[in-house]
Amino acid sequence: MAKISHFECARCGEKLAPATLLNVCPKCAGPLWVRYEFGRPDREAVKLGPATMWRYSSVLPDVEPVTLGEGFTPMLPSRKHANVFIKDEGLNPTGSFKARGLGMGVTMARFYGVKKIAIPSAGNAASALAAYCAAAKIEAHIFMPKDVPMANRIECESYGAHVTYVDGLISDCAKMVAERKQAEGWFDISTLKEPFRVEGKKTMGYEVAEQLGWELPDAIIYPTGGGVGLLGMWKAFEEMEQLGWIGSKRPKMICAQATGCAPVVKAWEEHRETMEMWKDAHTSAAGLRVPKPYADREILHAMKASGGTAVAVTDDEIMAAFSSWAREEGVFAAPEGAAALAAYWKLIESGYLRPEEKVVLFNTGSGLKYIDVFEKYFRKKEQPKSRALGGIIQPY
Amino acid sequence: MAKISHFECARCGEKLAPATLLNVCPKCAGPLWVRYEFGRPDREAVKLGPATMWRYSSVLPDVEPVTLGEGFTPMLPSRKHANVFIKDEGLNPTGSFKARGLGMGVTMARFYGVKKIAIPSAGNAASALAAYCAAAKIEAHIFMPKDVPMANRIECESYGAHVTYVDGLISDCAKMVAERKQAEGWFDISTLKEPFRVEGKKTMGYEVAEQLGWELPDAIIYPTGGGVGLLGMWKAFEEMEQLGWIGSKRPKMICAQATGCAPVVKAWEEHRETMEMWKDAHTSAAGLRVPKPYADREILHAMKASGGTAVAVTDDEIMAAFSSWAREEGVFAAPEGAAALAAYWKLIESGYLRPEEKVVLFNTGSGLKYIDVFEKYFRKKEQPKSRALGGIIQPY
Ligand SMILES: [Zn+2]
Ligand SMILES: [Zn+2]
Repeated sequence: MAKISHFECARCGEKLAPATLLNVCPKCAGPLWVRYEFGRPDREAVKLGPATMWRYSSVLPDVEPVTLGEGFTPMLPSRKHANVFIKDEGLNPTGSFKARGLGMGVTMARFYGVKKIAIPSAGNAASALAAYCAAAKIEAHIFMPKDVPMANRIECESYGAHVTYVDGLISDCAKMVAERKQAEGWFDISTLKEPFRVEGKKTMGYEVAEQLGWELPDAIIYPTGGGVGLLGMWKAFEEMEQLGWIGSKRPKMICAQATGCAPVVKAWEEHRETMEMWKDAHTSAAGLRVPKPYADREILHAMKASGGTAVAVTDDEIMAAFSSWAREEGVFAAPEGAAALAAYWKLIESGYLRPEEKVVLFNTGSGLKYIDVFEKYFRKKEQPKSRALGGIIQPY
Repeated sequence: MAKISHFECARCGEKLAPATLLNVCPKCAGPLWVRYEFGRPDREAVKLGPATMWRYSSVLPDVEPVTLGEGFTPMLPSRKHANVFIKDEGLNPTGSFKARGLGMGVTMARFYGVKKIAIPSAGNAASALAAYCAAAKIEAHIFMPKDVPMANRIECESYGAHVTYVDGLISDCAKMVAERKQAEGWFDISTLKEPFRVEGKKTMGYEVAEQLGWELPDAIIYPTGGGVGLLGMWKAFEEMEQLGWIGSKRPKMICAQATGCAPVVKAWEEHRETMEMWKDAHTSAAGLRVPKPYADREILHAMKASGGTAVAVTDDEIMAAFSSWAREEGVFAAPEGAAALAAYWKLIESGYLRPEEKVVLFNTGSGLKYIDVFEKYFRKKEQPKSRALGGIIQPY
């Protein structure tokens, strides 16, 4: 396992000792990256590790993991589109990619002696925090919109978390956590307001490399809410090049968003360096309802540096993509994941991507977390073709 | 990969050529086992294989898999009970252990040229069949009780399966498949009415061995509906001993059932060799609503030969166990899985199991498949302690 050398501010470059757990840069409030004293780890040695994200222990903190078996999810070759791969994060504990970031975040919080953790969440991060806190015997304080999918509510309460439902968005939840955390003694584990969720999510980058034979794809389409995974993968690519595990080639980093909440797309198209708060955010892809990602500059930087782009898709396009993955791949995706496929279709149509380019689409979670969302959608649509809820009922 | 030598009837010993795909023994209608010409595969070589059930390809048919990344699920040491392990099958594709059996069943059906498959199901097998058929481009015809959990309905229809909801139980569904299959040209992939679902499920036995260092535990508690997994593991242990991978020690094979449908427990307690059809089967653990397992003799044999037993638990005991796993382990289990923990508690109390015995509890699926079931249960109970759906709603 790797020794942490220091925390480094992504914005001003400030270096901070890792003696205590920090949130953001005390100078400029920028997100903090973890920097290591790497030895000379061999990339092939990961094959001897467990079938979880902890197989990359040589590039992760030296710590006893709080693990539920997160990571090392399947990389499925598409059966429909040549050169396309589906990275199926729905097979994680708690049914989403959030298990990686929160598994690592809670592991490190326990290591640093934290007793209570608070999170504002669009839903799936809350479920993951609640699960890992239950495993680590840490108090979880969760703030999420009152209209999150039913699964997130049942999960968080079953895990014994303290849940507050907010009549607002994740940004409103974040304000409530910020207001109360000092008085309550909560460690704030908000997206990119502590350095370790990125360390968990970066393992997705290592897996993309390992599972494609240490050769990065031409593009990665990533459903982007807070953007931790995108930044985590970007950091992983840097580390792997530094370690000599890969070369300097980078995939185009492409953000998929919903037209009902597309702050990344807007900032990208307007060539801005920061993002504005998106008004009236709404989409059935709950995880994409993040009106203003905290690490806006860093996300835009990775897109720019990689020759990437950002694409917004409608909820109907998302549901068409969901249906295609289910019927043609056997993958029952989260709406956020389906947004990646919808974005792929658009980028092929526009010519930005060519069919011969190797592209990894992230399905960020299992469709099982959205059963009530799908049910409502299918009911409303009554699409004759979908057969949704259209089976025959036979008495016996 | 292993060459299939023949199919062998579990009851009368009849040997049949594997040239065509068969259902049951043409002589006695007994279930068929697949027998191989094994080479001398090395157990350590499995570590070089993929992190799926196909890592055991040296003991599986020589075929191109239809895979969604099934198997090699986490073996989690319990945080509450020393010497207890939770085998978390919820991390399979389609969220349950059914992915193993149907993944293999569909793989072999495609290999043998099958175009249409029918299944009677309590719910999760239907979802798995629908997913693998979508991946394999085979027509799926599904018959399941109309009151299966909502997830099973949405999954099957999303995957594009042909679904019939039956006002009855899985046994009624089975009759409908049996009546229509010949005219429709369906291959019947019912539990133990074809030889390959067992081959998929047996990989659970190989995983228990590998993940515990090739030393079998003292007991395995297995939530038993149709019992394929139990028989699959039993077969795996035989094969492994034959291959020299393990010795002759066997774990006590313990069936966990629900008091509302406990044909195995009844037959066991009455020292019978077969099971009777359970009347008025009802339990919130939908997967345990199997009124009469087809392989009744074989299940009872494995229990007897291993010094096992069978335990029935109430739905309230199941929910208490569900809650314990969520709050104390961070595992959001299916009710069927929770039945294994409830059974463990009973067997410790009765003295049948001692706390120092190494026990593997199978969580057969993800609780995400039962969100509507939990929601209804918690609403009805209004347990003040559970906090279920009891979070505060705050306007912002
Ligand atoms: Zn700074
Ligand atoms: Zn026979």
